[in-house]
Order: sequence, then C-alpha cells, then structure tokens
Amino acid sequence: MKSLFMKSLLALLLLGGAAFAADSLPSWNDGAAKKSIITFVEKVTKPGSPDFVPIAERIATFDNDGTLWAEQPMYFQFFFVLDRVKVLASQHPEWKTKEPFASLLKGDVKGALEGGEHAMAELVMATHTGMTEEEFQRVVTDWITTAKHPKTKRLYAEMVYQPMQELLAYLRANGFKTFIVSGGGIEFMRPWTERVYGIPPEQVVGSSIKTKFEMRGSKPVLVRLPEVNFIDDGPGKPVGIQQHIGRRPIAAFGNSDGDQQMLQWTTAGQGARLALIVHHTDGDREWAYDRTSSIGRLDKALDEARVKGWTVVDMKKDWKRVFLWE
Amino acid sequence: MKSLFMKSLLALLLLGGAAFAADSLPSWNDGAAKKSIITFVEKVTKPGSPDFVPIAERIATFDNDGTLWAEQPMYFQFFFVLDRVKVLASQHPEWKTKEPFASLLKGDVKGALEGGEHAMAELVMATHTGMTEEEFQRVVTDWITTAKHPKTKRLYAEMVYQPMQELLAYLRANGFKTFIVSGGGIEFMRPWTERVYGIPPEQVVGSSIKTKFEMRGSKPVLVRLPEVNFIDDGPGKPVGIQQHIGRRPIAAFGNSDGDQQMLQWTTAGQGARLALIVHHTDGDREWAYDRTSSIGRLDKALDEARVKGWTVVDMKKDWKRVFLWE
Repeated sequence: MKSLFMKSLLALLLLGGAAFAADSLPSWNDGAAKKSIITFVEKVTKPGSPDFVPIAERIATFDNDGTLWAEQPMYFQFFFVLDRVKVLASQHPEWKTKEPFASLLKGDVKGALEGGEHAMAELVMATHTGMTEEEFQRVVTDWITTAKHPKTKRLYAEMVYQPMQELLAYLRANGFKTFIVSGGGIEFMRPWTERVYGIPPEQVVGSSIKTKFEMRGSKPVLVRLPEVNFIDDGPGKPVGIQQHIGRRPIAAFGNSDGDQQMLQWTTAGQGARLALIVHHTDGDREWAYDRTSSIGRLDKALDEARVKGWTVVDMKKDWKRVFLWE
Repeated sequence: MKSLFMKSLLALLLLGGAAFAADSLPSWNDGAAKKSIITFVEKVTKPGSPDFVPIAERIATFDNDGTLWAEQPMYFQFFFVLDRVKVLASQHPEWKTKEPFASLLKGDVKGALEGGEHAMAELVMATHTGMTEEEFQRVVTDWITTAKHPKTKRLYAEMVYQPMQELLAYLRANGFKTFIVSGGGIEFMRPWTERVYGIPPEQVVGSSIKTKFEMRGSKPVLVRLPEVNFIDDGPGKPVGIQQHIGRRPIAAFGNSDGDQQMLQWTTAGQGARLALIVHHTDGDREWAYDRTSSIGRLDKALDEARVKGWTVVDMKKDWKRVFLWE
C-alpha cells in the first residue's frame, strides 16, 4: 500500500505535476475563453502531439496593469507617484509654487497633468530617481504593504484578478515559465511580484530609467538616474521580450492596445499559440471601459482580436469572481 | 526493498538532488580553490545553517570570455567579425578601399584596428546589424557550428573549460540559477549557450545594440539597428545584473578587470558570498596572461582579490584538465 502511494507520488513528480484543468481554473466560468486556454495547454504539453512544445520553450508573457491587477481610475503606479510627492514635499518647499507639483499638492490631479507628457515625466523622475536601487526597493515595499486604493480601500496588491492568479499557477504547473511584460516600471514591480504572483524579479520586464554603478566609500551602489532607459509599451514590448527573454513566447496575455504588438509577435511564431485579451466589461465588480478610455484603451487590439481569432475574455461573463475578497 | 528504494529516490528528488561535491568536480585538483567552492555551496544549501540561502536567491553569474571559454589570441566574437567581413565583402565592393575593412580583407588585423574604438565599432555594426534578430541568429548558429579556432583547429564551442562546465552543473544541482554576464554580444551568445552550457537565453546578459519592432507586410520583425544599446562590461555588469536579474548574485565568476565591479557588487551583499577569478597561468594547455594582456587584462581585480580574499584559480595547478578533448 505504502509502496503504491510512493510510486504514484513519484509518477506525479516526474510528470512535472500534471495539472487537472477543470479544477485548476475554478474562478472561470465554462465558456469559449476557458476552453481555448485548456485546449491550448493540453495541445502543447501532450507528448507526441504535433503541437508539443518542450518545457524550455513554454514561455508565457503577461501584461500587468489591467491584466493581472486593476488599473482604474488610474494606473496604480501613478497613485504611488502622488503619495510620494506628498511625502517628499517637505524636502522641496519650491514645489508649492512649481507645476506640476503645486497642483498635485492641492489635490488637483487633472491640473497637474495639463502639462502632458512633460509634466508626467517630471513627476516620475522626482519620485523614482536620485536614490539607490536598494532605497527605491524599500520605498516601494513600504508603499505596497500599506497604501490603499481610494475606491475599494484595499491594498493595491489585493486588487489582483483571482482568475488570472489561477491561470498563472495552471500554466506553471504545466511547465510554463511565466513572465510579466509591462509598461510599468520594472523596479516598481519587482519588490512584490514574487510574493503576489509567484513571479521572481528575473522574470519581470518593464520600463526603466538608467542606473549607474558607483562606489560610496567601500560600498558599491547602483544610483537611479533621471533619464529614461527603455519604454516597455506597444512596439517596445517585443523589443523588451527579446532583450530579456531572448525567445518568442508561445502565449501572451494583455488587455489594451499597448499589448497589441506583443500579441502579434507571439502569434507570428510557428506552431500552436495563445493570444488572450482581458476585456473590462464589468462595471459592477470592477470597471467597464475599452475604446475611449484614457487608461488601458482597448480599440485596435480588440478589432485585431476579432479578425485573428484571439481569445477575448468577457470579464462579466467569463469570470465567476474578479477579486479574492469578493 | 523496493519501497525503501522508492523512498530514497523520493528523498533525493525532494532534496532537489543533493550533489556530492567530491564527485561533482572531477576536473578540479584538491586545493584551496576547490575547497572554497565546496565550503560555500555546503554552507548556503544546508537547512538550518546561519548562511542558508533559499533556492530562489541562489543566483550565480558567470563571465563568458576567459571564464567559461577561451579568449585568445582574441575574443572569439572578433573572429566572427573577421569571418563575416569576408563573407559580406562581395556585397560591399567599397570595402576594398575603405578602412578598417580594406586592411582586414588583406589579413592585416593589426592595421584594421589602428583606428581604435571607432574602427572596432564600424566592424561590429557592419557585421551585427541591418538584419532581423532571426536572421542574425541563423548567421551565428551557422558560424558556431562550423568555424574553427586558428590555433587549436577546434570548433569554438569545444573550447569551453571542462572544470567550469562541472562547476555550472554542480551549482545547478544545488538549486542555483546560473547566468552569463558577459561583455560579449547578448545575441551572439544566446543561439548556443543552452546547448553548450545548459544556460537558456533568458539567463544570458550581455552587451546589446538597439532593435526596432516593425511590420513587414503582415509579418512582425525585430530589426537590429547600428546603435549601441548597452555595454555590459566593468561598471556595466552590476547595471546589467540589476536590469536583467533584479537581485544581487551570491556567487560570481570572472577572469579579468572587466569583472571587478561584478565581484564587488556580489560580495557587498550580506551573508555568505563567493567571488572567484580564473587566473590564466597555463601557457602549455591554454594561454598564460594577466596584468599586461590587451585581451582579458587581469590587474586591478587580481590585487583586490588578494586584499579581499577572493578565490583565485591557478589554472595550471587547480585544473586537472582544461578542455574536454585533452
């Protein structure tokens, strides 16, 4: 009896943990979206199947904002910027009269952003640079474990989508390596992605600023410089994927036009591919937005999804629940 | 009896494959270098040890040229450049009279390099850019599987150091994730590092040029542009490590002053650390060079190794054999 148990356990281990799809995605309603995921995974993992993909090549890339966690009423990283401007204001008396800081400190976000991209860049650089990587990691960690979303009053890290968490785990149980490929800041995500998504820092791709190695006495540090290094959005996503991963994903997951090129790049490879878009259709449990939203606009990629047969998740219909705390 | 066997096997699997050091490094002579490696690995992998490091944090970074494979009489990637210039010359009649190409085509490498960094950059850009990533991968793959080293008449991929191959395997068997962090071109290494070193493309960090995503008809491609993106050498190595890996290695392996900052960065972290330098002392089996070599100069890092107690491998004394084909 014991021997049989050991044998079964060993068989499971050697199979790399065969995942039983029906149970692995409990927050997904049965329907075309769930079916397309399971069909794809079964195809690429079945030895002998014409679509079989070796484990080393089972690369899956996920956008973060709007795909793994929410992004309304604005990108969560921008809430971080706002909170940091408030904290840092005491060290910057000049901000009281200097835009875009002055408006922001009065609570006028719209006014602050009237300066467009230039204003945004100033705010990001003022809050993200001029410190070492270690200092920045500490600041992000403090924020993510304490700051709360203005509408839900939940920690931002609690606003991750439960069905996507299950999907990450399901893919990993089937030998996939899961990566984040986000327009968000790479070092803004890394301090918490392992704990929250099970995705280690080396599997996070994102936008970045330049850094510089220097010795402070006998202590080497990496200093964050106020200069853009890379923007990992739109056509930047395939570039970032090549830079960091060096091979083409076989599955990619996004929610906006910023993910369109990643999905094109992924599906242009040979063999079975999965391209999936999360469509925000649920104004009750989450937010409903697509073609005209300034955050997470989904317009061209939605058209292309329909033409190319990419999987479109209708949040309202396809997800039994959105957040774990529902 | 069978049950006991299964239990033992299972125990081994669960331990993540306990590696028996004495047998894992057969090409290393017993001595201080081998001992420092084994002592370090046993310390960080022993549960309950004050130096224990969880598997996720067992990051080891390896320089490539002169650390994992040879680099004399010049960096192998430069042999690739020479070979490519010859192949491409028929498409560039103007090279016959244009430096640095003209000298190179006459076999005068020294003359070609009189133009210094500018000449080198021209040669690299002419041979590494203006094509898609896929095309470049094909060119590199063809070269690495056919081109031979002028002195040994071996394939370049055969000129990897057997003791370092064993070290890579030993670390991985002990739960380490092994990365290459090289001044060489990232896409020059990726097509063959998995086959040769067991290091997948996503664990290769190197120097890079910029790339651009574009649609060619309905086919998306990444085009390699004649513009430097990142130089992963010297102070660039800790920057590249942070960009790609996002956490500090606990062990780092190099052979030249270009690795000094990587070793500083690695050893400046808390807890047990291993910094190791391969010292090329064997003019018979390989090459002997250090402080005055223009390729792989080892001068400042050798001094720092002695002050800081980093492990210095004396190739002649510490390695039973250098290459597998000896």
